[in-house]
Amino acid sequence: MKTSISAVLGYITLGCAVIGLLFAFLTAKKVLKYDEGTDTMKKISAAIKKGANAYLKRQYTVVSIFFAVMFVVLCVMAYFKLLTWFVPFAFISGGFFSGLSGFIGMKMATAANSRTANACRNSLNRGLRIAFSAGSVMGFTVVGLGLLDVSAWFLILKNIFRLSSSEISSAMLTFGMGASSMALFARVGGGIFTKAADVGADLVGKVEAGIPEDDPRNPAVIADNVGDNVGDVAGMGADLYESYVGSVISALALGVAAFKSIEAMAIPMLLAAIGILMSIFGTFFVRTGEKADQRTLLKALRKGTNFSAVAIAIVAFPLVYFVLGKQNIGLYFAILAGLVSGVLIGFFTEYYTSDTYKPTRKVSESSNTGSATIIISGIGLGMKSTVIPVLVVVICVLISFFASGGANDANVGLYGIALSAVGMLSTLGITLATDAYGPIADNAGGIAEMSGLESEVRERTDALDSLGNTTAATGKGFAIGSAALTALALMASYVDKVKEVGPTNIDLTFDLMNPAVLVGVLIGACLPFVFAALTMESVGRAAQSIVKEVRRQFLEIVGLMEGKVEPDYERCVDLCTRASLKEMIAPTIVAIIVPVAVGLIIGYKGVVGMLAGTMATGFLMAIFMSNSGGAWDNAKKYIEAGHFNGKGSVNHKAAVTGDTVGDPFKDTSGPSINILIKLVSMVSIVFAAVVVNFHLI
Amino acid sequence: MKTSISAVLGYITLGCAVIGLLFAFLTAKKVLKYDEGTDTMKKISAAIKKGANAYLKRQYTVVSIFFAVMFVVLCVMAYFKLLTWFVPFAFISGGFFSGLSGFIGMKMATAANSRTANACRNSLNRGLRIAFSAGSVMGFTVVGLGLLDVSAWFLILKNIFRLSSSEISSAMLTFGMGASSMALFARVGGGIFTKAADVGADLVGKVEAGIPEDDPRNPAVIADNVGDNVGDVAGMGADLYESYVGSVISALALGVAAFKSIEAMAIPMLLAAIGILMSIFGTFFVRTGEKADQRTLLKALRKGTNFSAVAIAIVAFPLVYFVLGKQNIGLYFAILAGLVSGVLIGFFTEYYTSDTYKPTRKVSESSNTGSATIIISGIGLGMKSTVIPVLVVVICVLISFFASGGANDANVGLYGIALSAVGMLSTLGITLATDAYGPIADNAGGIAEMSGLESEVRERTDALDSLGNTTAATGKGFAIGSAALTALALMASYVDKVKEVGPTNIDLTFDLMNPAVLVGVLIGACLPFVFAALTMESVGRAAQSIVKEVRRQFLEIVGLMEGKVEPDYERCVDLCTRASLKEMIAPTIVAIIVPVAVGLIIGYKGVVGMLAGTMATGFLMAIFMSNSGGAWDNAKKYIEAGHFNGKGSVNHKAAVTGDTVGDPFKDTSGPSINILIKLVSMVSIVFAAVVVNFHLI
Repeated sequence: MKTSISAVLGYITLGCAVIGLLFAFLTAKKVLKYDEGTDTMKKISAAIKKGANAYLKRQYTVVSIFFAVMFVVLCVMAYFKLLTWFVPFAFISGGFFSGLSGFIGMKMATAANSRTANACRNSLNRGLRIAFSAGSVMGFTVVGLGLLDVSAWFLILKNIFRLSSSEISSAMLTFGMGASSMALFARVGGGIFTKAADVGADLVGKVEAGIPEDDPRNPAVIADNVGDNVGDVAGMGADLYESYVGSVISALALGVAAFKSIEAMAIPMLLAAIGILMSIFGTFFVRTGEKADQRTLLKALRKGTNFSAVAIAIVAFPLVYFVLGKQNIGLYFAILAGLVSGVLIGFFTEYYTSDTYKPTRKVSESSNTGSATIIISGIGLGMKSTVIPVLVVVICVLISFFASGGANDANVGLYGIALSAVGMLSTLGITLATDAYGPIADNAGGIAEMSGLESEVRERTDALDSLGNTTAATGKGFAIGSAALTALALMASYVDKVKEVGPTNIDLTFDLMNPAVLVGVLIGACLPFVFAALTMESVGRAAQSIVKEVRRQFLEIVGLMEGKVEPDYERCVDLCTRASLKEMIAPTIVAIIVPVAVGLIIGYKGVVGMLAGTMATGFLMAIFMSNSGGAWDNAKKYIEAGHFNGKGSVNHKAAVTGDTVGDPFKDTSGPSINILIKLVSMVSIVFAAVVVNFHLI
Repeated sequence: MKTSISAVLGYITLGCAVIGLLFAFLTAKKVLKYDEGTDTMKKISAAIKKGANAYLKRQYTVVSIFFAVMFVVLCVMAYFKLLTWFVPFAFISGGFFSGLSGFIGMKMATAANSRTANACRNSLNRGLRIAFSAGSVMGFTVVGLGLLDVSAWFLILKNIFRLSSSEISSAMLTFGMGASSMALFARVGGGIFTKAADVGADLVGKVEAGIPEDDPRNPAVIADNVGDNVGDVAGMGADLYESYVGSVISALALGVAAFKSIEAMAIPMLLAAIGILMSIFGTFFVRTGEKADQRTLLKALRKGTNFSAVAIAIVAFPLVYFVLGKQNIGLYFAILAGLVSGVLIGFFTEYYTSDTYKPTRKVSESSNTGSATIIISGIGLGMKSTVIPVLVVVICVLISFFASGGANDANVGLYGIALSAVGMLSTLGITLATDAYGPIADNAGGIAEMSGLESEVRERTDALDSLGNTTAATGKGFAIGSAALTALALMASYVDKVKEVGPTNIDLTFDLMNPAVLVGVLIGACLPFVFAALTMESVGRAAQSIVKEVRRQFLEIVGLMEGKVEPDYERCVDLCTRASLKEMIAPTIVAIIVPVAVGLIIGYKGVVGMLAGTMATGFLMAIFMSNSGGAWDNAKKYIEAGHFNGKGSVNHKAAVTGDTVGDPFKDTSGPSINILIKLVSMVSIVFAAVVVNFHLI
């Protein structure tokens, strides 16, 4: 009978995954029907497509070498019975689907950019519809592929290989590691590409030469637009695929540990499945009249996401009640806590980074005293903005743990924490749609500018872009909040794993008064700092090579500044590609080697300390860097909108400096740290058997 | 017999403390014999003195209100038997001596600045001798008063009140809290003052009006020089008094817990006493010929500190051997590990922040692409520079713990960690001397500039100042490293305290898998971020008021820019004073309330998590902020020395922006966090009985 439940469970979730993918497919077809616009627009869009495709192809080539090496390593470990033979394959599949999510999202985005620009020639609303639809394709591809991967593995391992629940959850954690590794490459590589191009284009074009943003005379302008696609779209796709899958599988694993039953595995999978359906319904609420303004559009988007969240909150109750029984209804409150926390963190991210609120306006104001003070106030804002998300997560963790009954059985409480992360991410289909359309609008603006469309069009794409910044803030809040909760759940999974692979009398207390645990915390806390430094310096190095190239072209290409000759766009794209691929290696290797090294030297207790340290500091650094960056970006926009002496003033120059510093903060280092804190946990889990058997102290 | 040992112990350390103070007194008399220079110099020096005295007077008035309130709170707690009656008085005495250390240091510094400038009219070497002697006064006042306070309380409690060892160590921890609170006020208030004045003077004077640094036409120039004294001198004095005393008393407390004998208390006290003597000997090695250049001077300083360190390393061996016996000789290696770690962290601080090494030069180089890239590279440098100090502390902790025998008896291991901190700080007398002379040289430079002395004199004071930056880096390394070790020791003391005040069956495991502990880590990790943000924003606000005032004076005072009329210096001093006193309250209150609130809500286990989180993140943030700031400062100096297009170039402007951002990093937020991580521990210890008896979860 158990088997039949599990078969049903697997097929239901598989079905919902397919529905999500189908919805994405149909939406994509709809978008592709629209017109791409004038010949110039088509030409520019084609150049962006070409650059993005070339980058992704080369990135995946580099990454596949890494995956091949890791595959061999995992096979060797499997040979020595330190892992099961499913692990290497699960690892590959996680990486593959994560990469695929990014690839499809990017394909769609590069197809939608010119169509959005063209639609904006008609009205703001039409532009939004196309951009949002393209974003939906990405959103539902990510959740569809995520749930497909989870349910397919579940069905294969359960029904074909007839593995036990704990063996299944073990194998699944490895495909999380594959997804995380891929996501880190995509985020770091894409993030370096996009910001090197952006910083390079801005520094020489805007600041030195004084030409507008996205001016076709700027040699880095195509690279900048390519960057939006490979960084903000493909990188984000891979990233959120990883978050989504990570939260589900950590909940699966802890469910098995807590209840030792298939029902506990059912909850996160069914919750994710319901989430996909409710998110699809939500998208139908995103409608406005033809004459909508920005505020109405935002309302329309909010209506969609709010509907989905409320619907999931309602449906989750009977789900928990009927699957796990009345006695476990406390777990429902864990899910609810997660949902609410996601919304709260999203709101406060917006509060701190949107120019409709006081904090960002104060950053704008500090431009009165120059670039140094705008930097100081932006950093101050980012650091201060960590408080509320920390408190929200703390309260969410305590509610999830204690409402689930963690006081009596810690395992159930930890499962509750994992479920809160799944709850938070259950609306991902639609929140990601509202998030992913931002870079598409940004690109559309670039195309409008470069094709010399009427300034009205550019104004519309700017309005979309600025709306996109608001929704992106919400999206970031979800990504960061869920990363912290998932990392906590993965810590618990690690302890389970140690218990499983260790001797029967293994000591499973991780007392902070034990120096191995304590120094572990210190090392773990250091990791996000190092990681942020490495990624930021990579952006700096890559940007400097772009700066030099752009300066060279301005100097050497006769007639360029007069607009008579085209710059050599491809060289800049190629430089960005090579620089970012070179630079993405080191940070990723650090993230994989450090947890193994810590384990081999100070043992599995040190690893738990390290995970706690990385989770705590990583969470803070991610919020700090994302929010500082977001605030600088919008502080600049606020000045450009005519406040504090407006565009071209000394204030504006200072704000551009702030924005440039914020670029790697918010689009490279910050989001990569989200992945980092989960990747270190997954790596630790996969290498647990090695660490438990061999360690120095 | 035991009593006689303790009496001897108390008198020996008291004797060494008095020797230290006597040495400081004699050195002070020697310095005061030198000539103050021309009438203009005297006048300027008098203005600085006046401003500094006025500030300190008002600061102490504000602080004494805080101390009075806390005194009443502690008395109420004593009345309800949550504390002994010694605690309120110990608290006051710690605050008093910490404040006194700062006060004496500042008095000396303001007396020595014009004398140093005057001596520089003769030779670099004479200038160094006076500045270094004045620094020594501060160094030996701090260690002398520190050890005086410790040994006096020891004698009183032991010989008059005949308390047990554990009661003595309890009372002593409270005077640590008094010292920490005072230190935090001094560091934060002084740090805000000095940086508001500095940033304000630079932004309007250097950047906007284009007049040189320390130009007498700048209305904020006296405030800037007052700031050096109240922030860099008085603030640092109070700060290091707290570090020194904190390390000794945490070692005392853990010694009692580990050995339950008076001998274990003897080690840290005697080590500190020996440290004073060896530091005095060390100062006699700081001699050079009349024609010394900068390199020779640095060598001379190094010779002094190295002699002291080696001498302590030698004498500590028989100390441990004879007092605690052959079986505990492992503790010697803990002391040695501390000494070596301090030197290593100091060296790597210098490596990352001095323009003789690659990292800072790279920051200079990034000025080629403007202020945004210099900010990014400086932040990257600071974050990356955390790795080595973390590894050094990790290794030091592991060696101290395991060499002491922590594997068999954790209490002894924790005592070992505390002793390593005492070892690190045992050379404080001389390292502080080499550190404190920097601001004196800085002031001397200001006086030379303002009095219109020959440019040669200014060059000499600049050389001294730059040498001061190097030695200050070393000093900072000690302060940060010892703060981390002391915080670890205080965590252990907290656990001891909980054990003492809790019921006999109290659960003393602090497992990271316990959600209360885990969320404690998260909250604790957040604290340094908030604290850094608050202090940075305070500097920003205070600086903006100065900027406005300086701009106003430039505009409104006719003949000012032509040098015909003097600006209104006093108004700027007064503005800085009021702003910094207002701004110092909030951060300090946060540091005191958060640990109590965490305890009352999530209990004593959450507190241990919080302490670990604050220690880890605080350590990292302190290094990051200090080193970024130091690197920007020296990157600017490197450009001013003629590299990368030199003074007045676009590169220089970018570097000034970096330096301005770095000012609150390195002189306000960074060093305050060092105090924060110890203050939260001490507050937790003092309120342990309340928290154990009343908490929500």
